[in-house]
Amino acid sequence: MVTRAEIAAAAERIAPHVRRTPVLTARGFGLDFPVALKLEQMQHTGSFKARGAFNTMLSGPVPAAGLVAASGGNHGAAVAHAARALGHPARIFVPEMAGPAKIALIRETGAELTVVPGDYANALRMAQDHEAATGAMQVHAYDAPATVAGQGTCLAEWEDQGLDADTVLIAVGGGGLIAGAMAWLQGARRIVAVEPETSCALHAALAAGQPVDVEVSGVAANALGARRIGRICLDLAQAQGIAAVLVTDAAILAAQRALWCELRQLVEPAGATALAALLSGAYRPEPGERVAVLVCGGNPAPDPLP
Amino acid sequence: MVTRAEIAAAAERIAPHVRRTPVLTARGFGLDFPVALKLEQMQHTGSFKARGAFNTMLSGPVPAAGLVAASGGNHGAAVAHAARALGHPARIFVPEMAGPAKIALIRETGAELTVVPGDYANALRMAQDHEAATGAMQVHAYDAPATVAGQGTCLAEWEDQGLDADTVLIAVGGGGLIAGAMAWLQGARRIVAVEPETSCALHAALAAGQPVDVEVSGVAANALGARRIGRICLDLAQAQGIAAVLVTDAAILAAQRALWCELRQLVEPAGATALAALLSGAYRPEPGERVAVLVCGGNPAPDPLP
Repeated sequence: MVTRAEIAAAAERIAPHVRRTPVLTARGFGLDFPVALKLEQMQHTGSFKARGAFNTMLSGPVPAAGLVAASGGNHGAAVAHAARALGHPARIFVPEMAGPAKIALIRETGAELTVVPGDYANALRMAQDHEAATGAMQVHAYDAPATVAGQGTCLAEWEDQGLDADTVLIAVGGGGLIAGAMAWLQGARRIVAVEPETSCALHAALAAGQPVDVEVSGVAANALGARRIGRICLDLAQAQGIAAVLVTDAAILAAQRALWCELRQLVEPAGATALAALLSGAYRPEPGERVAVLVCGGNPAPDPLP
Repeated sequence: MVTRAEIAAAAERIAPHVRRTPVLTARGFGLDFPVALKLEQMQHTGSFKARGAFNTMLSGPVPAAGLVAASGGNHGAAVAHAARALGHPARIFVPEMAGPAKIALIRETGAELTVVPGDYANALRMAQDHEAATGAMQVHAYDAPATVAGQGTCLAEWEDQGLDADTVLIAVGGGGLIAGAMAWLQGARRIVAVEPETSCALHAALAAGQPVDVEVSGVAANALGARRIGRICLDLAQAQGIAAVLVTDAAILAAQRALWCELRQLVEPAGATALAALLSGAYRPEPGERVAVLVCGGNPAPDPLP
């Protein structure tokens, strides 16, 4: 289990390297209540993933062979960025579906990059082979304690910034971010997991009582398309009995557009998925319930300024 | 003269209607010092202009004929938005160079819109004719005390959010925003005015000792392309002896790209103009000087999600 103390230690460890991302409370979106937002897509490389990447690399000695990671794109960019910042070599495996914008982002960091046919699971297998062959340190995208503790610093930071909410909505792919949030909050606020109907590994695992493979597709697949939920996430979700809701691709795209029109925040579909649950009514707060939405990823395709 | 008391009154007046926009301190941009930023492009309709628009409409009775404004785009959108929010009719005149994205933004508010051939000055003449013919209330884009007091609330808010800076860089078009800043700060921090070389009404007026007409063109012209600086701005700039620097269109576009790459903030060229002075070296802070940049406009063309 990842503890609050581990998350607090991670926050101290990564503080010189990560950005304290802004928060605000916004009215609008056609809602009759305000929404607290944390703009974590303003983090280095455009997602929360930099937190877990730095925490992993700073938690122990990094071998001479450096780092290896498999990623739908955002995690790979974060690992490449953190490795460069800390002076380590990095090798990143991404599936084709990462798309040209995210692949270009990883290339810019100077990491060695391999684009793998198929989906994330294929990239992960190749990364594991690379780890076995070279002794490089694997930075798991979501199902490792150091990754989860790093992502948990996002919620710790938000509370330090005065988060005023009963309920926090968080998008789920493999579950690293929400696992960090559950580990930090320990039930102190309600957490709502939001998944695309087309990539719903947590929903399927909660229904089955254990991790199961799901098909992944849809507009947020390159960020949320984990075929199987992380064990750390599932254990916490079962223990805390968190709510999980599904949203359609159309709802995600509408929320992406709403973030641009209302707030001039251009995010990727995954970054708008948590908000989509509110705007579509997939999650309906009680009267007076104070709601917060974590905006987690900002690497849209196509890149608006390539 | 616009006083601090008038700005404080404006802040109270408009508080229910405007957004408290986020601030952050960011390292990056290839600079060896951090930069404090206020993301005022997250204001309603994508620029600070909503502040002056609401303050004008809330400062006195609005005639039955409603509001009229001339605008390169952002001010028109703000007046249209505020008018709709407060239940008044509005008539907006914009020059063709406002461009399709900003024209669409104004249309969405439901205001009556006239697109005028030529530049901003032509639109202003037509707005003045409409005012004379109908008795509508003119909301000047920059050279009216209620407008300036409204824009000044942006700096007042930033100080309330803990602004930690010796120097604040602000882009200048007609000078409404910087006039509000000068009126609020009264010399307590250094203000640096930043203008495109291709639209430099303040620079030309300071050199001539009085407002003079300039040619306007370039990538930020639809937001910063005032042909003549506002009198309120010039009087304050002369009295306070503020620094004014010029940046090239290339520097503005590089800063626009840097805001996207570093912070995932997609802004229009005018919104990146103040930062361009830092990134291009047009303004070089002293060692240890704490620098802040006001990001003022976020309506790029083309609209990334039309």
